[in-house]
Amino acid sequence: MWELDRTSAKPLYKQIADELEQKIAYGEFPAGSVLPSERKLADQLGVNRSTVVLAYSELRSLGILESRPGSGTRVSVTKWGVTPKHTPNWHRYAEGGSFLPSPPFLRRIREALELDPSMIDFAGGELAAELSPLEELHAIMSEKWPVMYLGYDNPQGYEPLRDTLVSFLREYRGIHTAASSILITSGSQQSLYLITQCLLSPGDAVAIEDPSYCYSLPMFQSAGLRLFRLPVDEQGIHPDDIYELYHKHRIKMIFLNPNFQNPTGALLSPERRERLLHIAGELGLPIVEDDPFSMTAYDGKPAPSLKSADRAGSVLYIGSFSKMAASGLRVGWMVAPHSIVKRLSDARQQMDFGLSVVPQQVAAQFLNSRYFLPHIDRLRSRLRHKRNLTIAALERELPGMIRWRHPEGGLHLWCTIAPEVNDGKLLEACIQRGMVFVPGSVYGSASGHVRFTYGRANTEDIPEGISRFAAALRSILN
Amino acid sequence: MWELDRTSAKPLYKQIADELEQKIAYGEFPAGSVLPSERKLADQLGVNRSTVVLAYSELRSLGILESRPGSGTRVSVTKWGVTPKHTPNWHRYAEGGSFLPSPPFLRRIREALELDPSMIDFAGGELAAELSPLEELHAIMSEKWPVMYLGYDNPQGYEPLRDTLVSFLREYRGIHTAASSILITSGSQQSLYLITQCLLSPGDAVAIEDPSYCYSLPMFQSAGLRLFRLPVDEQGIHPDDIYELYHKHRIKMIFLNPNFQNPTGALLSPERRERLLHIAGELGLPIVEDDPFSMTAYDGKPAPSLKSADRAGSVLYIGSFSKMAASGLRVGWMVAPHSIVKRLSDARQQMDFGLSVVPQQVAAQFLNSRYFLPHIDRLRSRLRHKRNLTIAALERELPGMIRWRHPEGGLHLWCTIAPEVNDGKLLEACIQRGMVFVPGSVYGSASGHVRFTYGRANTEDIPEGISRFAAALRSILN
Repeated sequence: MWELDRTSAKPLYKQIADELEQKIAYGEFPAGSVLPSERKLADQLGVNRSTVVLAYSELRSLGILESRPGSGTRVSVTKWGVTPKHTPNWHRYAEGGSFLPSPPFLRRIREALELDPSMIDFAGGELAAELSPLEELHAIMSEKWPVMYLGYDNPQGYEPLRDTLVSFLREYRGIHTAASSILITSGSQQSLYLITQCLLSPGDAVAIEDPSYCYSLPMFQSAGLRLFRLPVDEQGIHPDDIYELYHKHRIKMIFLNPNFQNPTGALLSPERRERLLHIAGELGLPIVEDDPFSMTAYDGKPAPSLKSADRAGSVLYIGSFSKMAASGLRVGWMVAPHSIVKRLSDARQQMDFGLSVVPQQVAAQFLNSRYFLPHIDRLRSRLRHKRNLTIAALERELPGMIRWRHPEGGLHLWCTIAPEVNDGKLLEACIQRGMVFVPGSVYGSASGHVRFTYGRANTEDIPEGISRFAAALRSILN
Repeated sequence: MWELDRTSAKPLYKQIADELEQKIAYGEFPAGSVLPSERKLADQLGVNRSTVVLAYSELRSLGILESRPGSGTRVSVTKWGVTPKHTPNWHRYAEGGSFLPSPPFLRRIREALELDPSMIDFAGGELAAELSPLEELHAIMSEKWPVMYLGYDNPQGYEPLRDTLVSFLREYRGIHTAASSILITSGSQQSLYLITQCLLSPGDAVAIEDPSYCYSLPMFQSAGLRLFRLPVDEQGIHPDDIYELYHKHRIKMIFLNPNFQNPTGALLSPERRERLLHIAGELGLPIVEDDPFSMTAYDGKPAPSLKSADRAGSVLYIGSFSKMAASGLRVGWMVAPHSIVKRLSDARQQMDFGLSVVPQQVAAQFLNSRYFLPHIDRLRSRLRHKRNLTIAALERELPGMIRWRHPEGGLHLWCTIAPEVNDGKLLEACIQRGMVFVPGSVYGSASGHVRFTYGRANTEDIPEGISRFAAALRSILN
């Protein structure tokens, strides 16, 4: 009677809602009739109760069902009564617009983490709770704040935070800039979104690293950009590759993550930096430098920024609070010529009228506080410890079966396994065993690559997580 | 020698930067040479020092100038030295992308407010500091917050805030919904941006009120939508107008602000609400109900929401914290079918990875607090007082020369003056006298209309502000 297809891309709750809507339309459940309770229908269909809750809620929001406390869920009388009414075809609306959905693997991982909170997480691109200065941030939040007007923020962002960043960028990133050349964003994601939406047009060609986290962002494809690859080895990209892309495809911008690259951990070598900036200057080609990880350099000396050596003014610099403190605050920044900052902040006004000042106050306070440097020291040594634990576990569990690039900063370990292993099957086998990682194909790699985010996993879970991965890999290979 | 054109649309700082760049390129200022100090050049050119600061900063960010503390600003040696380098043509990049700039009048108003903070502001669409519960919000912020993980938020928004809104919407807006059908946004602007970007496609036709604040949002044009008008009288739109737009232009969505409409203050009458919902249901046409002002109803009874009578499931409901408490917190919400909420939150992830939890915690806490109801009572009575003051001043200053719609809620007074008055000239004359308002043409009106936002002006400035407006209007008419 009920035709649920568990292998379909259509979520179960949607299948149930659609089926129910049809039954109602066909008169199987007439107007005013009482439906089975959520629990009962769930039992009957062999699904989670929450799936039925969602299906009913969908139909309720469409006006097809009504629920009243104590009297259960009924088919709405108004809707199915005298006048014929048409609910807008919301599903067709939901398919409109220009946004592509997230890559299927990432949605699968998110879903697995939501369903099972005990899942060991080597996938999420953010800091584990133990790495975040939570006590310190909460101490700052609970300070006695001076009462000030809470109106719309300056379109470029909260001025005291921009002033703080002028010092921070000078001291730690070698970047000399002014508050008027800084745009505060809600993080690197918004910085990239503004750049791809406002400075590029559909059909434009851009160069990104291969592999690159940019492939995991449907944003680039949604903006209609054509992506060309700059292969990354242990020393980063080969700058001379840019000539060919420039002459053949007229690339208009280069997106790079030169320090402890996501996903490979590669650090662009000094010679290549120099060559890169020379070529960018020669071609008048802008570089977007995404620099979230440099403060985590395990040797305690933050890798220099490209921007600090940018004599030709080629570099748009992107930084963030997320990977060095807490992603949940949603604070990032961009350094750019004032005309670009103006353009992007004007566009951002159209999207969201700017940011909340509250998290910006907290971020500024933290960067200026006595908590900041001790936190960064602790973050570095803990990340190094987690990297070492992960590598030791891989050596123990999968001797000779896996290779990796040795990162000197950042959160990620990029590994190579047998190329015949199917990405999707391996991910499913890992989820069954209670761990998630990100398959390399998400970053544009050929099969046989895996990203472990040891920065996300809890320290005490690392050996067990890798052991589950090893069991899953062996199960696939056998 | 310097050719500054004060009537040009190109800002003065840009003119100075371009001129300077040319002088450097032509060798007038050779590499390494010291430029005049900002103050000196400002005096020489008869401009504000801040204008020169901006020009120098622009050239610094392009790598053309260098500044070192104590040794002034010099022409960069590296850039203008041995190797020819090309700075990316940032200006061309800044002109790319699909975002239109804000309407010229709004930019002019913003600029005037920035230059002269003593300007009496009848233009800004937000609450005056005296209307915002600043003490209460700061008391909440300074509470001892429990330490919790600050990772990426749930893509639909902070769950305790959604739970709070379920009660709030039920109690005050007559809307019965579930947390799973709520999307937290950074405000109505982001809600509208998500709807126009994700549920509509370029070329789609939509209906908006006439006049409507939507005309002031380049967002609609940037999304490539075709806008059709539903004229608003004292009772709101005429629902039967929808038929013609639907059959002639195949409109796909209707954007309405039924309670104390911006800019007219109109309240959609009960008969028209019923008719509107009937027509929307008949045509299967979605309505976006933007509902920022209803809690300000001066008689203490919030006007009902359209959504509360929405039997066919036609209404996407948008609410916000901005106009009832503080716009600077950046918290708003949307109620929609779960499939739409999913789609929009997935797209929002691509734009900014979601919101900061901190302002969401503050908003939830405030809505649940003992501060909330007394604040709303105070807000209402103060707004009514400001409306009365504004009307009294208009009667005194411009007897017989101006008419207005009498609003029973909201922040705005919509006025009609002699149609031969030129919008732009009147605005300039007001700026000269130290007050700003918004010309009606910004909202799509024919000339002869004016919006006063008495909710933004400080109470004690209202008589003087209107008196300045009256003087400006008389100067134009003579």
